[in-house]
Amino acid sequence: MEEQVNMKVETLREDGFGEEKYFQCFVAENQENDSSKLIGYVLYYYIYSTWEGKCIYMEDLYVSPAYRGRGIGSRLMGSVCKVAVEKKCARVHFAVLAWNKSSIDYYKRQGAVNLTETEDWHLFRLVGSAIDKMAAKADV
Amino acid sequence: MEEQVNMKVETLREDGFGEEKYFQCFVAENQENDSSKLIGYVLYYYIYSTWEGKCIYMEDLYVSPAYRGRGIGSRLMGSVCKVAVEKKCARVHFAVLAWNKSSIDYYKRQGAVNLTETEDWHLFRLVGSAIDKMAAKADV
Repeated sequence: MEEQVNMKVETLREDGFGEEKYFQCFVAENQENDSSKLIGYVLYYYIYSTWEGKCIYMEDLYVSPAYRGRGIGSRLMGSVCKVAVEKKCARVHFAVLAWNKSSIDYYKRQGAVNLTETEDWHLFRLVGSAIDKMAAKADV
Repeated sequence: MEEQVNMKVETLREDGFGEEKYFQCFVAENQENDSSKLIGYVLYYYIYSTWEGKCIYMEDLYVSPAYRGRGIGSRLMGSVCKVAVEKKCARVHFAVLAWNKSSIDYYKRQGAVNLTETEDWHLFRLVGSAIDKMAAKADV
């Protein structure tokens, strides 16, 4: 299955830093030859639980391959968790592909629980014409 | 395993209808004996994909048992999908417990894809002291 990224720089700028903010992020930079190089980022947003109130969802955590193994990912994820503490968010959620065992091992070492394993939560998605068809049922 | 709901009416009011809104919702009401009775609701919020931009997450879809089988759930979910169309959200996500087969059958009939089955996405959660420990790594 091939997938295409439909994202443009302008869209990211508008959605993250415009009037209505749909995400927040932290970036990791390295000073190289008097200039600053982007070597990692974490992107997150608030979600909501009717049991626990506001929570955080960590959408992306990325560190450039050449800079891995130095704790940069932990500092990025730590920054998100610090926001969770400050904002009194009871949970930090995220999704991982099951084949990504090194990431899963890492997250489990940090105390994360795999809710798909322990509670059998499955993630569903509706796209395209299925959304349109469902939308038509709103005003039946 | 027992879990407790930590939610208060005041918190829901503040988080949904206060200055900073963490969720949005539609409600279904029935006129009974000259008064209006709440018989269902759907709660959703915006999430973000770095591939697809802003999307919608449907957190809760509930119809009181006595009122099921009349298409109320479809109208509520349809209302969320209508927002997705209006706001140009490419995806509507939600999570379902695997034992809830009647719900899963319903969602699949609407064209929803189980991403845990098809792409092996697993949902993870960090809570309590694990968040605190991780937060301490932010400023290492």
